[in-house]
Amino acid sequence: MALIVQKYGGTSVGSVERIQAVAEKVARFQAEGNQVVVVVSAMSGETNRLIALAKEIADEPSPREMDVLLSTGEQCTIALLCMALENMGVPARSYTGGQVRILTDHSHMKARIEAIDDARVRADLDAGRIVVVAGFQGVDHDGSITTLGRGGSDTTAVALAAALKADECQIYTDVDGVYTTDPRVVPRAQRLEKVTFEEMLELASLGSKVLQIRAVEFAGKYSVPLRVLHSFKDGPGTLITVDDEVDMEQPVISGIAFSRDEAKIIVRGAPDTPGIAYKILGPVGAANIEVDMIVQNVGKDGAADFTFTVNRNDVKRARQALEAESANLGNPELIADDKIAKISLVGVGMRSHAGVASKMFGALAEEGINIEMISTSEIKISVVIAEKYLELAVRALHSAFGLDAPAED
Amino acid sequence: MALIVQKYGGTSVGSVERIQAVAEKVARFQAEGNQVVVVVSAMSGETNRLIALAKEIADEPSPREMDVLLSTGEQCTIALLCMALENMGVPARSYTGGQVRILTDHSHMKARIEAIDDARVRADLDAGRIVVVAGFQGVDHDGSITTLGRGGSDTTAVALAAALKADECQIYTDVDGVYTTDPRVVPRAQRLEKVTFEEMLELASLGSKVLQIRAVEFAGKYSVPLRVLHSFKDGPGTLITVDDEVDMEQPVISGIAFSRDEAKIIVRGAPDTPGIAYKILGPVGAANIEVDMIVQNVGKDGAADFTFTVNRNDVKRARQALEAESANLGNPELIADDKIAKISLVGVGMRSHAGVASKMFGALAEEGINIEMISTSEIKISVVIAEKYLELAVRALHSAFGLDAPAED
Repeated sequence: MALIVQKYGGTSVGSVERIQAVAEKVARFQAEGNQVVVVVSAMSGETNRLIALAKEIADEPSPREMDVLLSTGEQCTIALLCMALENMGVPARSYTGGQVRILTDHSHMKARIEAIDDARVRADLDAGRIVVVAGFQGVDHDGSITTLGRGGSDTTAVALAAALKADECQIYTDVDGVYTTDPRVVPRAQRLEKVTFEEMLELASLGSKVLQIRAVEFAGKYSVPLRVLHSFKDGPGTLITVDDEVDMEQPVISGIAFSRDEAKIIVRGAPDTPGIAYKILGPVGAANIEVDMIVQNVGKDGAADFTFTVNRNDVKRARQALEAESANLGNPELIADDKIAKISLVGVGMRSHAGVASKMFGALAEEGINIEMISTSEIKISVVIAEKYLELAVRALHSAFGLDAPAED
Repeated sequence: MALIVQKYGGTSVGSVERIQAVAEKVARFQAEGNQVVVVVSAMSGETNRLIALAKEIADEPSPREMDVLLSTGEQCTIALLCMALENMGVPARSYTGGQVRILTDHSHMKARIEAIDDARVRADLDAGRIVVVAGFQGVDHDGSITTLGRGGSDTTAVALAAALKADECQIYTDVDGVYTTDPRVVPRAQRLEKVTFEEMLELASLGSKVLQIRAVEFAGKYSVPLRVLHSFKDGPGTLITVDDEVDMEQPVISGIAFSRDEAKIIVRGAPDTPGIAYKILGPVGAANIEVDMIVQNVGKDGAADFTFTVNRNDVKRARQALEAESANLGNPELIADDKIAKISLVGVGMRSHAGVASKMFGALAEEGINIEMISTSEIKISVVIAEKYLELAVRALHSAFGLDAPAED
């Protein structure tokens, strides 16, 4: 008998009909001999409705009370799902985060889970019940309701799976798995059978919105096998698992991620003295702007050419922060460019395979695409190119690294 | 410094604007030097919305899960009210029933309060905070959410006031107090300054919907001074208090209640043998129909004439129950009449004043109104009359017992 934790997001429980469909699916899993814990989000639209109510009352609502308000969204869903199950004759019991109890720190609206008491859940499972838990929420040491921030339901599911030592944590979404790249850009993108936690983390941080980064981190830390599946289509989905379970014969590259959310700022002609990087990035950080890629070269006449990327929404503020410090930096030339895109190859196979970078650069050169910035890590190579080449570049790389699905006859 | 518990119902918190108006009112009370605990209901319409959702899922939703669902209504209100208070710079803290903790029995959807832990509320009050508590809900010994049934927020307020030994429990409603009778029928009806718990119980059970009977019972049991006030109009309202605090010089009659909700059934010609009342009312009770007034007379030829009243909605079922037992009852004649009304005079003054009944019957006779049934208790006299005379009778009695407000010039 396997113990499975399943998580259904807001869209999957977005209407009475969908809640009933989820109930049937869950009941089927139990009938097949599994113990099932279900974690649900608020019905789609509900959280936004509640936030709008709060904003009518106060521009900056009290975070403690915001959590009291928002947590009602998931509380409604757990009750409705249990009603649907019990109406089908399947014993079920709902728990809010506080009832489980999912103990968190005091950080309202972005709380972190500290401990989970699994006694009540386990007793219900042993009594043959399906346990339905409100995602996204917990309770702090004072008994105040906390929430984990957007996407927190994934984290609840993984944390519960870890606490219960579940055999698998299944995240049901509106996609049928993790793909080698975005199928809207590359029609021949393929669903991955397996991917490692590290790869998934890189893919997630690079814009693949299938899973929340925190949940993947958590699953990796506690080695909880995680599976991404489609809520309403059958299929094996994608298993996210630890490194050593991955087939050694797997391709070097698992996936290609890309993002249009970035912009770069070039600082040209700052003096190439020790500490210049700190002088440039200090004011940017002080303005609470996150910096992604950083490249520094010595230019002509001993001046530094310094380039970094930020989120496209932050580029104006980053430039202003630098202009305010211009004298300190030797009045360098500032060039901002938001017509860029970032493409990243991700794969644990890179560790044992040389030549991935040169193969990547070669494939891009063949299409006449200029690389503006390069950044590498152990399992990732990222390049910045002009935005207009994005689709062309992704397709060329997808093909060059053998990721294309076989052509259909 | 007084400790006041205030309760605002669903209409009083039915919109963001009204919640803000309540926040201002509550803050004013605190600024005047009071410690304030506020009990709120769900925003008007919210409970019905949630019930409709549940009914879409299941015809008979699990009571435990119904409570999980319904309790979110008040939880939203406490959060929004606290946000409004904090936005005005007034420290406030919200509590669900479970957080307080309001301990109840296990009877979902109609739980009874067993104990209240006042430690957290008291600590907050002492720290200068306004405490906002979700009405209508509690938590049982297993930590499951329970609700107290419709109108349960009044009970929550009274129970909290009793636990905290509050100086007063104020129930804010859409009327400015308890009246001598319904002002829509008698324009010269007057607001009562004071009324006793016993009188209020009689008035409430007779159709005066100002307060829930359970809350009045609770307040009487624990001698919690209860005051009914209008949510958005200033005024002293009506104080409901224990007998010995009532002015001995007060009028004999406090109020006149009436109801159109009843129907009578006459059982004519059943044998007048011991046990005939039980034989008649047994089948009615077995059909789960509540009987109100009962009158029995010996008719001609030693047969019993037996009359009783039931809720108008139950009259058909009551008649069917009797017809099924007709042979047992000696095949009596059954006459149902739903064109009746009940009028009750209520007043603790009756105890020490003779002649109330005869004065009542005289006033009705003077208007040519026939009395069909009579029933008396220590502080109440009820009569059944033809429905068409209802308004006439109430006005005549209101005037005869000196309840009319002085005529305006």
